[in-house]
Amino acid sequence: MEQIPRFLSWRNMLVLSLAVNFSLILKILKGEKERGDSWDRTVYSSIWPVVSTTASGSSLLSSASCNYSKIEEDDDGIINLKLGDPTVYERYWQEMGDVTTMVIPGWQSLSYFSDNNNLCWFLEPELGKEIVRVHKVVGNAVTQDRFIVVGTGSTQLYQAALYALSPHDDSGPLNVVSAAPYYSSYPLITDCLKSGLYRWGGDAKTYKEEGPYIELVTSPNNPDGFLREPVVNSSKGILIHDLAYYWPQYTPITSAADHDIMLFTASKSTGHAGMRIGWALVKDRETARKMTEYIELNTIGVSKDSQLRVAKVLKAVSDSCGNETAKSFFEHSYDAMYERWKLLKQAAKNTKRFTVPDFVSQRCNFFGKVFELQPAFAWFKCEEGIVDCEKFLREEKKILTKSGKHFGDDKSYVRISMLDRDINFNIFLHRVSVSSNSTL
Amino acid sequence: MEQIPRFLSWRNMLVLSLAVNFSLILKILKGEKERGDSWDRTVYSSIWPVVSTTASGSSLLSSASCNYSKIEEDDDGIINLKLGDPTVYERYWQEMGDVTTMVIPGWQSLSYFSDNNNLCWFLEPELGKEIVRVHKVVGNAVTQDRFIVVGTGSTQLYQAALYALSPHDDSGPLNVVSAAPYYSSYPLITDCLKSGLYRWGGDAKTYKEEGPYIELVTSPNNPDGFLREPVVNSSKGILIHDLAYYWPQYTPITSAADHDIMLFTASKSTGHAGMRIGWALVKDRETARKMTEYIELNTIGVSKDSQLRVAKVLKAVSDSCGNETAKSFFEHSYDAMYERWKLLKQAAKNTKRFTVPDFVSQRCNFFGKVFELQPAFAWFKCEEGIVDCEKFLREEKKILTKSGKHFGDDKSYVRISMLDRDINFNIFLHRVSVSSNSTL
Repeated sequence: MEQIPRFLSWRNMLVLSLAVNFSLILKILKGEKERGDSWDRTVYSSIWPVVSTTASGSSLLSSASCNYSKIEEDDDGIINLKLGDPTVYERYWQEMGDVTTMVIPGWQSLSYFSDNNNLCWFLEPELGKEIVRVHKVVGNAVTQDRFIVVGTGSTQLYQAALYALSPHDDSGPLNVVSAAPYYSSYPLITDCLKSGLYRWGGDAKTYKEEGPYIELVTSPNNPDGFLREPVVNSSKGILIHDLAYYWPQYTPITSAADHDIMLFTASKSTGHAGMRIGWALVKDRETARKMTEYIELNTIGVSKDSQLRVAKVLKAVSDSCGNETAKSFFEHSYDAMYERWKLLKQAAKNTKRFTVPDFVSQRCNFFGKVFELQPAFAWFKCEEGIVDCEKFLREEKKILTKSGKHFGDDKSYVRISMLDRDINFNIFLHRVSVSSNSTL
Repeated sequence: MEQIPRFLSWRNMLVLSLAVNFSLILKILKGEKERGDSWDRTVYSSIWPVVSTTASGSSLLSSASCNYSKIEEDDDGIINLKLGDPTVYERYWQEMGDVTTMVIPGWQSLSYFSDNNNLCWFLEPELGKEIVRVHKVVGNAVTQDRFIVVGTGSTQLYQAALYALSPHDDSGPLNVVSAAPYYSSYPLITDCLKSGLYRWGGDAKTYKEEGPYIELVTSPNNPDGFLREPVVNSSKGILIHDLAYYWPQYTPITSAADHDIMLFTASKSTGHAGMRIGWALVKDRETARKMTEYIELNTIGVSKDSQLRVAKVLKAVSDSCGNETAKSFFEHSYDAMYERWKLLKQAAKNTKRFTVPDFVSQRCNFFGKVFELQPAFAWFKCEEGIVDCEKFLREEKKILTKSGKHFGDDKSYVRISMLDRDINFNIFLHRVSVSSNSTL
C-alpha cells in the first residue's frame, strides 16, 4: 500500500464512500433487509462504511488507515456471524463480471438424467471434468481412480456416506464419532430421524466401544480450524474425510489428500453456498454406488442448473490460476483471509479480552510459500472470567455467534464466521476491540 | 387434421425427416447416448423418424397418417419407460424460445439465505409469488393462508412431511400407508434409513391398526391415474396429499384442492425434472416450520438457481394462460396427452393383447369442458395369460417398464411412462401393437 500515492488513495476512498452512501440510501429507501440466520432470525441493517481490507495492496482502502477503536459506530444493529455464510466472496465474483455468467435456455433440465454412462447418473459431465481439473490445479486431492458423487451440498453427501457405510442387516446402528470440538450439525443430522443404521457416538477422543464405527475427520476442522487426523485407535473404523476447508485460502496445501471418502463443497471453496452443490471423491465403487442410491432416494438427483453453474465457476477458478498477469481466485481469497486474521489477532493481543488459536506455519505447495492457517471460522474464547461467551457477545456486543457447547466443547468458546461481508467483519472487529460500555 | 393439404403434410414430413436424419447422423458421429435409467442402465439409440402427434392439428405430422403396424422399424434398441422422465415437454419449451431463458451472473447464489422474513428462509420470494399465481390461474389448489415450503423435488418434501408429522418422543415409529397400487418409491424412501420416527405400513385398504398413522393420498394416483380419497376409516389419520399430477393436462380440474399438506413438483407440472424443485402448501405453521427444519438438516436449503428458473417457467405458464391468441402451455400439453391416450386406447382395442384403465369423464373448470383423465403413466395390463408383464415387455418387446409388484399390485400390471419423447412413445406404441414375432 505504501507505493500508492496518498492523494490517489484518498480519492479512491471518497469515490468508494460516495458509492457506499448511495447504495445505503437505496437500501434504506427500499427497506431492504441485509441477511439473517434461520435459527436466530434477527433482521439487522448495516449502515456502516465498508472498509475493504486485503493483504497485498490491491484494495481501494488501506487496512492500515483503518483504526477500529476510533471508528464511530452509529449503528446498533445485530451482526449475525453464527453461520459460515460465505458472502466475503461476493465482491470477487462481481469484479469478475461476465466470465461466470450463465445463460440457461428454458428447455434445459427437463430430463432427470445427466450421464447414463456414469455410476452417478445425475452428475453433469462438465462438472465432473472441472472437479478433476481444479483438484489437479490446486493439488489438494487425488482424483485418479475415484468415483465422483455429486450432492445437494456436502451435507447430503455426509448422509449418503452414512447410508453407504452402515450395515443394512440387523446388527444395529453404527456409532458415528468425531473429535470435539466437532461440527455442530453432525450430531443433529445423524440423529434427526432416529435411524436404525447409524447414531451419533459423540467425542472420538473418549470413544472406547468395541466393533466397527465411523469416524469423521474434518480437516481443517470446523469450528477450530486445526488440521486433523483420525484419533480413535482401532482398526475397525471407517473414515469419512470432510475436506470442505482444504483450500489454499484457508490452509497451506501440503499434499494431495488421498483418503477413501473425501467431501468437498462449492460453499466454502468458491463461496457459492446458495447453489447447494457438494461432491465426494470415493475410492470404492460399491460405496459410491450406494451413495448414489441414497441421493436417488432422498432427492432423485441434484439440480442440473446449479451443477452447470458450479462447473463454470470452477473453470474460472482453474483458469485464473494459470493467468500470470492477474491475481488468481485463491490469491484474492488468501489475501482477504490473511488480512482478517491479522486484524483479529492484533485485536486479541491489544485488548486481551479474548483469544484465538495459535497456528503453526507450513509450506504450501500451491502458493510455494510458508504461512499459518487462516480458517473460515474463528474459535473465539472469551477471557476475563466470562463463562458464557455466546451470551456475552449477544447481550453486550449484539453479535450472534454459535456457542462452544454445540460443538461438544466449553461455553467460554464461540465459533465466529470469518467469511461475512467486509462491513460486518469490520463492525464485529470494532465491537470486540472496544470495552463494552463504549460500544453500545 | 383432415383440413391440412396432403401435399403440405408430406412436405413437412420430409423436412422433418431430413432434420431428424441430420440430427441422428450428428448423434452417431458424436457417439452420444440418448438417455437411460439409473436402476436399469441400458443405453439405447433411437433411429426412428419422429411422429409428432397432437389432438388439435397444430402438429407438423398428422397422427392419422401414421399407421403404427405398418411402420418398418429398423431399430432393435431398448426403450426405457420405467421412470416418468417428462421429456415430452422439451419441444414446447424449445418452441417458446427465449421467454424462459435465464441469465445468472456469477456473483449470484453466494448466500445460503433467500428470504429472512419467511418461515421457509430458503424460499426465493419470486418463486413463492409464481407458485401462488399459477395455482390461482389453474384453480387447482387453495394457497390463501398457506405456508409454502420449497424442496429439492417433492420427494424431499415427502420426507420433510414425515419428519414434521411424526412424534419425536419414544412412542415408536408411526405407520405410513397408502392404498395399493401406490407409488413404488414411497416404501423405499420411508424405510431406507430404518427410522424410529416412521415406517412403511403397507396398503391402506387393509390397514387395521389402532392409533395415529399417516395416509398418503396421491391424486391422480401414481401408477394407475385414478382420482383418490383417503381410504382408512379412522379419525386418527394424518393426511399427506401428493398432487404432483393434479394439473389440467392430466385430469379435469374439478375444484381447488384444500388439504392440510399438498405436494407439487415442477417435474410433472412444467416438465422440468432436472431442476429438482417441488413445493408444499401447508396449512399449519408448526408443520411448515418442522418441514423447513428437515430441509435445513438434510440439504441446508434448496438450489437458488433452480428456484429462480422454476419461477420464470411458472410465470411463462401463467402468462400463456392469459394469451387469447395462442395456445397455452396446458392446451399444448393436454393435446399431447389426449393424442397419446387416444392412440394407446385404440391399440388396446385393436390388438386385445393388453388393457389400460377406463376413466370417467368430468367437467374441468380450467378448460371449461368435459374430458376423461389422461394420466402421466399408463397402468398397463398384459392379457392373453401373460403372468409377468414386465418380463414379457422386456424380453419380447425390449421395452423397460416397472412391474406392478413394486406398487403393491399384481405382476400382470406394469407402469409405463406416457411422458417420454415422441420418438420413444411411438416405438413403444408400434411394438405393443404388433405381434411378438414380427416386432424384433
